[in-house]
Amino acid sequence: MSAVEPRILKGFRDYLPAEMLPRQEMIEKIERVFQSFGFLPLVTPALEYADILLGKYGEEGDSLLYRFLDNGERDVALRYDLTVPLARVVAQYPELPRPFRRYQIAPVWRAEKPARGRFREFVQCDGDIVGSGDPMADAEIIQLGAAMLEALGVENFTIRANNRKILAGLMEELRVPAGEPEMAVLRTIDKLPKIGPDETRKLLALENRLEEGQINRTFEFLGIQGSPLEILGRLQGFFASPSSPGSGAGAAGVSELRGVFQILEGVGLLPKVAMDLSIARGLNYYTGTIYETFLGDLPGIGSVMSGGRYDGLIGMFAGEQIPAVGISLGVDRLLAGLQELKLVAAGGSPAAVLITVFDAALAAVSARIAQTLRRAGIACELFPQAARLAKQFRYAERTRKRFAVVVGPEEAARGVVQLKDLNSRAQEEIPADQLVERLKIQ
Amino acid sequence: MSAVEPRILKGFRDYLPAEMLPRQEMIEKIERVFQSFGFLPLVTPALEYADILLGKYGEEGDSLLYRFLDNGERDVALRYDLTVPLARVVAQYPELPRPFRRYQIAPVWRAEKPARGRFREFVQCDGDIVGSGDPMADAEIIQLGAAMLEALGVENFTIRANNRKILAGLMEELRVPAGEPEMAVLRTIDKLPKIGPDETRKLLALENRLEEGQINRTFEFLGIQGSPLEILGRLQGFFASPSSPGSGAGAAGVSELRGVFQILEGVGLLPKVAMDLSIARGLNYYTGTIYETFLGDLPGIGSVMSGGRYDGLIGMFAGEQIPAVGISLGVDRLLAGLQELKLVAAGGSPAAVLITVFDAALAAVSARIAQTLRRAGIACELFPQAARLAKQFRYAERTRKRFAVVVGPEEAARGVVQLKDLNSRAQEEIPADQLVERLKIQ
Repeated sequence: MSAVEPRILKGFRDYLPAEMLPRQEMIEKIERVFQSFGFLPLVTPALEYADILLGKYGEEGDSLLYRFLDNGERDVALRYDLTVPLARVVAQYPELPRPFRRYQIAPVWRAEKPARGRFREFVQCDGDIVGSGDPMADAEIIQLGAAMLEALGVENFTIRANNRKILAGLMEELRVPAGEPEMAVLRTIDKLPKIGPDETRKLLALENRLEEGQINRTFEFLGIQGSPLEILGRLQGFFASPSSPGSGAGAAGVSELRGVFQILEGVGLLPKVAMDLSIARGLNYYTGTIYETFLGDLPGIGSVMSGGRYDGLIGMFAGEQIPAVGISLGVDRLLAGLQELKLVAAGGSPAAVLITVFDAALAAVSARIAQTLRRAGIACELFPQAARLAKQFRYAERTRKRFAVVVGPEEAARGVVQLKDLNSRAQEEIPADQLVERLKIQ
Repeated sequence: MSAVEPRILKGFRDYLPAEMLPRQEMIEKIERVFQSFGFLPLVTPALEYADILLGKYGEEGDSLLYRFLDNGERDVALRYDLTVPLARVVAQYPELPRPFRRYQIAPVWRAEKPARGRFREFVQCDGDIVGSGDPMADAEIIQLGAAMLEALGVENFTIRANNRKILAGLMEELRVPAGEPEMAVLRTIDKLPKIGPDETRKLLALENRLEEGQINRTFEFLGIQGSPLEILGRLQGFFASPSSPGSGAGAAGVSELRGVFQILEGVGLLPKVAMDLSIARGLNYYTGTIYETFLGDLPGIGSVMSGGRYDGLIGMFAGEQIPAVGISLGVDRLLAGLQELKLVAAGGSPAAVLITVFDAALAAVSARIAQTLRRAGIACELFPQAARLAKQFRYAERTRKRFAVVVGPEEAARGVVQLKDLNSRAQEEIPADQLVERLKIQ
């Protein structure tokens, strides 16, 4: 057989150990926060029947599915996110106690055009509360997100919240039809912080075909400023104005978001949560609270954590409507941010000690030392073949070990080992039975 | 849109929280053992170019790949195991320090006919040492496996080892051609412990078309008994017999395995490791040491951990031959075994406390209590909506909480909480600021 060129698909990545170690550290901290909030682990398959996924993400989403016929001619697709599989699970197992709070950290697949920072396989990290339509659940999810960032050492961040019903209230007033036209206007509004007001006005006119009066009214809406509770007060006035006599959706959204902010104020989180009427989020399925999260020290990297309420999605599978609200953490982007902020350690070796092997006759002696250290809770690596000591030391340095242990025939006969500190280059001879203690005080 | 029936593909599974919690506990223990041996995490993509995977698992393996043309008409497939992707990675990144020891715990996909205990998506848990052809590496991998079982509380197990070169020595003597005919005979021999000698003789005659002399010689070989070092001594005689004057492969296998057993004897592991000449393993790529692991208390469930040396696989991608040896742990089977042996806890809720919500006006008060507990390191769940207390207690019981905390308007005014012990049904009133301390002594 001729050699196959080792290569990876475009848009896919190998995570080598140096990348995995800080990632793993970050994900373990996040998991502990999920657990402290009582979230439970759920795992769903990578492959689903295609009709489970189709029609949930909009036309563009459907076209980005990795979809194929399996060996049994079933129409299947790799999951596109973790939210639709969760909705399927909730509908399929009505025996799950509700409110059901679960988390899942797993890859998803999208056949996007690869670009810098955009991949075809990437890890999503989601938490959701299913079965409560109460603002308490929205507030709990936002607190969860804040607790995660705090656990990761991030202090300077802002969660920018809005509500889809408030936006729907605006759309009602502008008489933009629901469905795709509404979604298209929302996607344009969502771009405002990135592209600025002039460009947004242009898009609203050219792409969304809004008239000048509609565009002005949109900017009047987007211009409402203040603290969250002030903005909500002003919105009440906006939706009660002569041109918009008491919008049902808008008023409902204001009331929901007021409930959320009252709780966030009660737990002292208000300084971290702002209201931002331009937050719209692209996905079709949101119905209430929506939010994005930005790092104050790295505004350029965009939102690192986002989510919202989707009360209609599960009903697409279950006979009944079941409300739900969730959070999704951008693992790659947040990790890049943490690294830039020096909040994760550079990945060294988790084992700080290399046990070298003097020669084949002493293999079992070195293996026994490794066994003793491991049983005492000290992670160590045994060099798995006899080789020149210089080569073994070079390996220890390349893999960032702190210590190397050497036992030659003379040491073995006398029951001692040589312990070499690879930072200071100092070497000391110590009785073999004191090695564990010596390494524990390091 | 009409409702889609929530359903899952045949051969695939959802792991609901009750199944995930013990699984997670098991996997965390295994990861800690990998780390204590200095193994590093590696993650590779679910999808690979098909030609990376094809031809590595034999014809049957090729036919079981989930293979399709992606949106860009690339011939791709879901990974079938974690070993071939590792081999690709080692060839693709020659800068990785060697010996390279990595672990990976991740799903793989095989379009098998679903059967009891056989799934189309299942998690593999692999550790490998790449870059050492020394018996020390084989011994290290076997020690790793033993340490995992010990960390999981399993004491009664046997690792049954053999060597492909020893089997190749037998095949040379029987003049069975290398390649598919040899693999077919090995697959038959591998069935001996399951189907017994009579059935094995029949298969060797009918399926493998061996003559009676060949079959008798095979059983002479399989009949060699004793301690590992005794068997190795007798094999030396077998391969030196007149009919087989010094088989190259057989003698090399004996010498390799002797090196492995000498180290295992040195670290006191010999009682746990047996030699078993009928262990052959089905996969094409093994070239040296091979082994399977059986639980003494549950012989019926089959091998829970297996692996071996594959010195030729990486060379299919790299220009050079790079030796490697690995272990693969059967997560599903081992977990079922641990559950049968009562070595894993039944999965309850990781949060032992439910904070109830008296009414909407007290939502922020309950949220604050939850926040205080979590910040003190006590996992708790906040019921995320106002509801009748009876309903909230029922939920607490269904999700196996130990305590429920209740704060009504009167309690809030007096700065106290009611703490209900859901086991004993006892209820006590305690000052809100003493709740953390009270729960910590539980």
